[in-house]
Amino acid sequence: MDSWVDGQPADALSLKDRGLAYGDGLFETIAVRNGQPVLLDRHLSRLADGSSRLMLAADQELIRSELLAYAAALGEGVLKLILTRGDGLRGYAPDPSAQARRILQGNPPAAYPAAHGEQGVRLFSCTTRLSRQPLLAGLKHLNRLEQVLARAEWQDTEHAEGLMLDQAGRVIEGVFSNLFLVREGVLITADLKRCGVAGVMRAEILFQARSLGIPTQITDIPLEQLQWADEVFVCNSVYGIWPVRAYAALHWPVGPLTRKLQTIARVLLDA
Amino acid sequence: MDSWVDGQPADALSLKDRGLAYGDGLFETIAVRNGQPVLLDRHLSRLADGSSRLMLAADQELIRSELLAYAAALGEGVLKLILTRGDGLRGYAPDPSAQARRILQGNPPAAYPAAHGEQGVRLFSCTTRLSRQPLLAGLKHLNRLEQVLARAEWQDTEHAEGLMLDQAGRVIEGVFSNLFLVREGVLITADLKRCGVAGVMRAEILFQARSLGIPTQITDIPLEQLQWADEVFVCNSVYGIWPVRAYAALHWPVGPLTRKLQTIARVLLDA
Repeated sequence: MDSWVDGQPADALSLKDRGLAYGDGLFETIAVRNGQPVLLDRHLSRLADGSSRLMLAADQELIRSELLAYAAALGEGVLKLILTRGDGLRGYAPDPSAQARRILQGNPPAAYPAAHGEQGVRLFSCTTRLSRQPLLAGLKHLNRLEQVLARAEWQDTEHAEGLMLDQAGRVIEGVFSNLFLVREGVLITADLKRCGVAGVMRAEILFQARSLGIPTQITDIPLEQLQWADEVFVCNSVYGIWPVRAYAALHWPVGPLTRKLQTIARVLLDA
Repeated sequence: MDSWVDGQPADALSLKDRGLAYGDGLFETIAVRNGQPVLLDRHLSRLADGSSRLMLAADQELIRSELLAYAAALGEGVLKLILTRGDGLRGYAPDPSAQARRILQGNPPAAYPAAHGEQGVRLFSCTTRLSRQPLLAGLKHLNRLEQVLARAEWQDTEHAEGLMLDQAGRVIEGVFSNLFLVREGVLITADLKRCGVAGVMRAEILFQARSLGIPTQITDIPLEQLQWADEVFVCNSVYGIWPVRAYAALHWPVGPLTRKLQTIARVLLDA
């Protein structure tokens, strides 16, 4: 399906776009099922937060209506929205009057092996560490060189994802996923105040767990805590939940809470 | 003047470019005088280092010849080269066989007030801190949201540049400049092993100073050391050197070593 730029079909972008020049913008990767964007409100909420923190003027209602129209035309697949600060002149100073440029791209449904969800995955141990930047932490912004370097660390198909730590050695997330662990019935995920992407599926899982009365904890996770976990899983808004079976010398079974939350994610993502 | 993409006149970029998607690339901003790119070898050397560290396959000889041809056509002005990993498919994994995409853009000469160089400038005190990321430190890569946020902190014309510290409070650089200080005859600039951009003019100034027998030091600079400086200046490859007259409550005269190095930079940059 054609991409859209500011609501119009387009296949190219101005060379002056600040998204290219500085990574000056945000993005969202949204599953589309039956012509509907999945978890749309959560995606829009993160986008609004990011726009506010980057001082990016974006018409949220216009974005919502474009996402709905584009998803209806796409039918099934993955929709990517990129929001940039539009054309720049020269230099880093943002034009306070600039309106965000909206880029919509459609892709077919992601083709991950079904075994990832069924039997679980092994995590690669990335040496690329996430840097501490509270001003950008949590945002899905366009400065993603750390993820590019981390993902370039392995080429084998044995590892479906990689685990990223911060500079202090805390467990933060996967390269393109958030990570949860379960210990003694408590669902635990990393505090993302210093780095990391606050995933939409992460937020939904926390919400669903609380609705089910499952205790949740958002906290710092030193690497050594992984060995005490009863269950580990990764998640994102496209594939849902993958149980984690192994990381380095550690192994986990696919646990009951993982399966319960996975079923909930699957209901959201399946047509 | 028209931009070039991969050697051909173009005004638009593929929407799939990884420079847009992830800031997956590098750039150089090069002064052009009399049809010649100034400090070309230093720009190419930094680009080669960056390409190697980002595993970006780039034909250095082709880039050199394109820069020479573009500068000859531009005559006078500022040439910007952006190197990206080209089109992506889906996900962060870089295609190991991808060749870098070359984008060349021409602008008229920068129009900074002459007073910046003559009387010196005042530095804004940026609260945006540079994050520690040794894997990217020194590179002029396309992930520049920290600079965008820092430059957005002031709109007045009283401050020509802003000073950026790292997360530990060390003095690193300006938003679009490197910073030097002079103390007891020694020329000092920040060690950029954790963060910062290793500027081409910074490298040239260090080289010129050593040629003149001036002792140089590349080291960590705690913020409080600024008060002991006899001279302070900022530099980049477009404007050369601006003496720094003030930062917060600190004031400095325009000193003799600053003037000497400024003259050298001016000879390089003036037609």
